[in-house]
Amino acid sequence: MAYLFTPGPVPVPAFVMEAIARPVIHHRTEAFTTLYAGIQAGLQYIFQTDGFTGTMIGSGTYGVESAIYSLFRPGEKVAVIQVGKFSQRWADYSTLTGLEIIALEKEWGKGITSTEVVAQLESYEAIAGIVITHCETSTGVCLDLEEIALAVRQKFPDICILVDGITTVGAIPFYMDEWEIDFAVVASQKALMNPAGTCAFAVGERALLRLKSTHSSDFRNLYNYYQAGLRHEYPFTAPTQLLYGIGAALQIMKEEGLPLIWNRTHHAAKVFRDGVVALGGEIVAETPSDSLTAFRFPGKDNNYLKKQLAEKYDIHLAGGQGPMKGEIMRCSHMAGMDAEMMQMVLEKLEAILHLP
Amino acid sequence: MAYLFTPGPVPVPAFVMEAIARPVIHHRTEAFTTLYAGIQAGLQYIFQTDGFTGTMIGSGTYGVESAIYSLFRPGEKVAVIQVGKFSQRWADYSTLTGLEIIALEKEWGKGITSTEVVAQLESYEAIAGIVITHCETSTGVCLDLEEIALAVRQKFPDICILVDGITTVGAIPFYMDEWEIDFAVVASQKALMNPAGTCAFAVGERALLRLKSTHSSDFRNLYNYYQAGLRHEYPFTAPTQLLYGIGAALQIMKEEGLPLIWNRTHHAAKVFRDGVVALGGEIVAETPSDSLTAFRFPGKDNNYLKKQLAEKYDIHLAGGQGPMKGEIMRCSHMAGMDAEMMQMVLEKLEAILHLP
Repeated sequence: MAYLFTPGPVPVPAFVMEAIARPVIHHRTEAFTTLYAGIQAGLQYIFQTDGFTGTMIGSGTYGVESAIYSLFRPGEKVAVIQVGKFSQRWADYSTLTGLEIIALEKEWGKGITSTEVVAQLESYEAIAGIVITHCETSTGVCLDLEEIALAVRQKFPDICILVDGITTVGAIPFYMDEWEIDFAVVASQKALMNPAGTCAFAVGERALLRLKSTHSSDFRNLYNYYQAGLRHEYPFTAPTQLLYGIGAALQIMKEEGLPLIWNRTHHAAKVFRDGVVALGGEIVAETPSDSLTAFRFPGKDNNYLKKQLAEKYDIHLAGGQGPMKGEIMRCSHMAGMDAEMMQMVLEKLEAILHLP
Repeated sequence: MAYLFTPGPVPVPAFVMEAIARPVIHHRTEAFTTLYAGIQAGLQYIFQTDGFTGTMIGSGTYGVESAIYSLFRPGEKVAVIQVGKFSQRWADYSTLTGLEIIALEKEWGKGITSTEVVAQLESYEAIAGIVITHCETSTGVCLDLEEIALAVRQKFPDICILVDGITTVGAIPFYMDEWEIDFAVVASQKALMNPAGTCAFAVGERALLRLKSTHSSDFRNLYNYYQAGLRHEYPFTAPTQLLYGIGAALQIMKEEGLPLIWNRTHHAAKVFRDGVVALGGEIVAETPSDSLTAFRFPGKDNNYLKKQLAEKYDIHLAGGQGPMKGEIMRCSHMAGMDAEMMQMVLEKLEAILHLP
């Protein structure tokens, strides 16, 4: 069995997989509404919110695209922070949807500060929303979401703050309500320790007003998930087995507790980053996330190193994307990872580096 | 454990569930492309096509909506046969997407003939496509897809024929290529014997030209699935575990063979329909599908009968939708069902009917 250290998909605990493999239930039953009500409560804990939560069939990309589609109307002005492949994808999609984009761009590997964000936005009027990618999975850059969200909110009280929390919610501190975030998305195959196929979201009051102003009945309009979700139901056929998995993972996470999870993830990340530097490597991100580390060994064929790790030790890291394809490696610290597992990866990395 | 006779979700065989519960693989590996290539070949068999096949994360609704979105451009004229809840949904979505709809409507329970379809279309010019719901799951009405598709094709050689085969592909005869169908969709929780969460599609040459004329990078544009699928890859994060399940089901179905499956389903349906009528019941559909039967007992509280079956025998049928809510019951004959199982349901139905 392969050791998956890719920043999604992550290894799935047996407890979760066994839940997924339970006998199929119908989604219009009490068994389902009981399951879903539990998931919704579990998600409130993970997102740290008292607001509405729900899930959708789809990957994280689907979740963020659906949110953009459901929250904003063509012609509205939306700022999109772009610091890597995924945040770039949200900008592309926003443009496709007919939104007027304010691009807040930085080169890959760099972050952006709250001061920079506010300074760039000040020359605009009637900004409907901002899309913030908490951790840019392509480079491992983590933004200071708390500072950015609160600074933006202070300057633009009515702005709708949409956060891609795909590789952060459940992995590192995330406080939806305290940070006055309006909408956030996470995907199942990240800190939620599940197979890919579902994503989850949380909605605050301001975003809810936006959702309620639309009434289209199509699959990706999140208003439909809100309406049905109030009764702990799904607007369409529900992925019952995948939701069993989400329910099981949320139970495990509640038992361990977010402070311990965040701490374990932070410690694993620190051990890994220190180890990489000690081996002569570089961390790609200026402000690295604890959920994953993008790194490179200068002067080495990093793609070859990644392949050697997989072939010799069955340790699977992810490579780079876009301009960083072939140039970097990425290692996950989410979903049950700890410092000891990171030591194991570092040892094997060292062995590979010392090969003739 | 409940006996699921709902026309989706269906019971999932252990062989399929065990495949789903395998250790997680990454979707950018040879293990994945091997799995996906096998699925694509299996789908060609199920759809009876030499064309491109693929899967998506999503329910059947998502599949048909994505197809409409990906194949047609706003302003194009598309005919939509509407004979029940689901075909109505495709009309609503087409309108939402900006298509000009030609409504071919019939009351619920009735079908439509090829002569009627062609006669109604003849007064129009430049019709881009037609959306045909092979079996309308809300009423169990099966259209004569072969006749309709071939008649429409003869009159409109360039029309794009999009078929909702959600409750027919893999359950009853379906010949994508022979019937000159351009695009067809099926969902995992029907004849494919899998949990809900994925859907599959097949694309013919004419539809491919339409797909290729669009280049948007968003999640639901099927062109992206085509491009990546040529390399047996996914354009986004793939639902690896659900795809393991699809692969396992396609293997079972290939082993049994479509003629035997179709025959078994047909026999189960016939036994069930005859039994219902013998018990004093009525079949809702004028031209019933073999994949499911919608039926009612006149003068009885059909909703109460359905509940009694569930409470006393743990046998779960579906109820009616829209105007038929509370008025009818629906029983599946898909996904491993046989005549003996239908006899069992009939026996319990009889027992319930004779209760004081």
